[in-house]
Amino acid sequence: MTNPLFLPELREMLAEQDHQQLGEFCTALHPARTAEFMDGLTADETWQVLQATDLATRVRIFGFLDREVQKAIVETSNRVEIGRLVAEMPPDDRVDLLNQTEPDVVAELLPLIPADERRDIQRLGAHPEETAGALMTTEYAKIGERKTVREALTELQRQAEELETIYYLYVVDDQGHLRGVVSARQLVSSLGRPDTAVGTLMESDVVSVRASDDQESVAQQVADYDLLAIPVVDKEHHLLGIITHDDVIDVVREEAAEDAYRLGAIEPLEEEYLQTHWFKLTCNRAPWLIFLMLAALLTAAALEHNTLQMQKITWLVFFIPLVISSGGNAGSQSATLIITALARGNVQLRDWWAVVRREIMMGLSLGVALALISCVATILFPEVDAEAALIVPCTVILVVVFGTLIGSMLPLIFRRLGLDPALMSTPFVAGIADIAGVVIYMRVAQVVLGAGFVSNG
Amino acid sequence: MTNPLFLPELREMLAEQDHQQLGEFCTALHPARTAEFMDGLTADETWQVLQATDLATRVRIFGFLDREVQKAIVETSNRVEIGRLVAEMPPDDRVDLLNQTEPDVVAELLPLIPADERRDIQRLGAHPEETAGALMTTEYAKIGERKTVREALTELQRQAEELETIYYLYVVDDQGHLRGVVSARQLVSSLGRPDTAVGTLMESDVVSVRASDDQESVAQQVADYDLLAIPVVDKEHHLLGIITHDDVIDVVREEAAEDAYRLGAIEPLEEEYLQTHWFKLTCNRAPWLIFLMLAALLTAAALEHNTLQMQKITWLVFFIPLVISSGGNAGSQSATLIITALARGNVQLRDWWAVVRREIMMGLSLGVALALISCVATILFPEVDAEAALIVPCTVILVVVFGTLIGSMLPLIFRRLGLDPALMSTPFVAGIADIAGVVIYMRVAQVVLGAGFVSNG
Repeated sequence: MTNPLFLPELREMLAEQDHQQLGEFCTALHPARTAEFMDGLTADETWQVLQATDLATRVRIFGFLDREVQKAIVETSNRVEIGRLVAEMPPDDRVDLLNQTEPDVVAELLPLIPADERRDIQRLGAHPEETAGALMTTEYAKIGERKTVREALTELQRQAEELETIYYLYVVDDQGHLRGVVSARQLVSSLGRPDTAVGTLMESDVVSVRASDDQESVAQQVADYDLLAIPVVDKEHHLLGIITHDDVIDVVREEAAEDAYRLGAIEPLEEEYLQTHWFKLTCNRAPWLIFLMLAALLTAAALEHNTLQMQKITWLVFFIPLVISSGGNAGSQSATLIITALARGNVQLRDWWAVVRREIMMGLSLGVALALISCVATILFPEVDAEAALIVPCTVILVVVFGTLIGSMLPLIFRRLGLDPALMSTPFVAGIADIAGVVIYMRVAQVVLGAGFVSNG
Repeated sequence: MTNPLFLPELREMLAEQDHQQLGEFCTALHPARTAEFMDGLTADETWQVLQATDLATRVRIFGFLDREVQKAIVETSNRVEIGRLVAEMPPDDRVDLLNQTEPDVVAELLPLIPADERRDIQRLGAHPEETAGALMTTEYAKIGERKTVREALTELQRQAEELETIYYLYVVDDQGHLRGVVSARQLVSSLGRPDTAVGTLMESDVVSVRASDDQESVAQQVADYDLLAIPVVDKEHHLLGIITHDDVIDVVREEAAEDAYRLGAIEPLEEEYLQTHWFKLTCNRAPWLIFLMLAALLTAAALEHNTLQMQKITWLVFFIPLVISSGGNAGSQSATLIITALARGNVQLRDWWAVVRREIMMGLSLGVALALISCVATILFPEVDAEAALIVPCTVILVVVFGTLIGSMLPLIFRRLGLDPALMSTPFVAGIADIAGVVIYMRVAQVVLGAGFVSNG
């Protein structure tokens, strides 16, 4: 999202210390766009620009800066100023930021932040990553169930400036248990009856999540129920905080990327591709590649087992890659279909038999189609005996059916074992299909060519 | 999301025609949960349950039913009743529903819908799929720029019941051009100054999209700017509608699934896996598999070209799958990394040189690591000459570097050509790496083994 158009003007204003123009720049646009226009300035320059505006605007723009720039500003700028900024940031965002900041800087900052906010940071920071607790913010509108519509609106008006969202007003009892929710929309449409108790207006069937819930299930619920925010409660149903729609969109995007990485046999990255050191990426990729190579060594062993056959019929060798890739590709497709369906909740474990039947039908149809093509193709090779050209097509059918079965079943088995189905990456499925492909190929060759061609194993 | 607990009770209430209890069932829970509890009833039974409640609740629950159930209800139930339901549905949802309904049913329904709503359906239905226009709803709060805070709130109060979202109030001039936006939050916090003109409160730098914009870019903007809703305008900046956060989450999930499918060499599905007929899925999968098989035939041709070599050194054959899968797997990883980074906007076309350098470094490191392992492994095979065991490791290094380069560059090239980078599926990258692997392997063997081993080509 770099937009270098404004950079020269901004640098000029900075050189001239033109605080008035810099202040106007900060307020003229949506804060996200302002942040975008500053992309390209150094952390120090960015911080100087932000000094030209009031604290509230500074906090809003700061929230849209790249995480790396945020960290650099926090770590290098005046601690007192940063303390003021952090104290005003949305509670969920500042915890994320401080978690990624050098510990000694955090230790210097914390005493500069008011005690209330400091305790809030420590409380939120205690939740494990990727849980509802780590995503939530403690800034939300809450009200007692006996308050009236008029009191609720007055309360909202007082709180509106500092809250992240006022679109839902959470109703709690005297002990702080979540009892219900009233939307700003219900409140506004009840303005004609200002003395109605909020308790009678509220929706008491509130969809909520536990602080310990996985962020993926939180996102699923917000999406299924079309919510703007979801309340987070503890075991006793005390209201702890809320998770807002913008954080949910981020989670959906993050989880989708995680699944994509796993499908491609990569551990999900913590940072962006270009921000991750190449050696760290290498270490991330190596274990999977080594594991897949060990699988490929089994294929080599299976081939060694059948040396004699291949020495007599050289052309068998030509089609090794074709035979094994047919199974691998069909298996990759099946794995992709099932992993995606599992992630979207469209397939459950109990559907396994329906999946098996469908994949066998597909495997047979695809296998026959590919077998016909390979049959025509083998005849084009001069060394191939027309009679024995039966071997490749028969193998292709068997291997494709095997690939579809293994590709569809392994993700279900992984889910059953409580593991992430996406761990069953497409290269892994292809690796298994490779070994099976070679074994099936040699076995079919033996059967078709008769007793003359026996294994040397 | 099936929950069969309530089904027997619901069927009993239906048998007893217990309208009061059915009515209570419809209003007791969040409409999404009510719909979930009815999952398992036939379309006819579901419609009977919904008859027990008022039209507004019926519309809300209906919106959370599965699309298949919705279609069955619309196509089989009393047309007049369905006309009333459709007239009350959110404009964007009903257009989606009618687009998937039998045309003759739609032709019968349209005359039963009030003229205003009918025109709205036709207008919204005219936008191509996957554009902002097709996602938007025409129900939003708008107000003239000269109105006061008090007038705006009264207006909101009047409109609140029927609008999909009241969290933003869009400010338009007399010609209907979008001029700005006021959030419900700003309005509520300005209640103390009821005579302020909305035009002075409003944010005039509104992030908006064109009706013809792709839904993916809409989702990107909503996510980047943390918006609850985004306005849709035409070329002259007339306000046409808005797209709400819940539809954006759906788009993000849909686009993520599309990318996952493409990465696995499958055309994105229009319906859920289990809802798609197996033969339709087969037709979806076949073109890619056939294409990949043609690529594998090139590998066969490359091997044929080198028959003589392999006849003399049988063990060369054992490692064909290992050599080609090393390249394919490394290439799949690189393709996954780059496609995901492109989809998230973390890598741009202009970063290609940084990508090349990083991938070469990674390819070399990974190649050396894998080469060491394969070197140890080859020695374990009795037939392998210790001297010539150099061939496999050298090939592995070259093939892995080739795989990382092709896997990372092809998605960038596809993006450059204006195609979807995810079309560069991991099986496709693996297919190219297969051919290159065989060619490199044979060439390395020739070089290491000297002039005695010449190709027969």
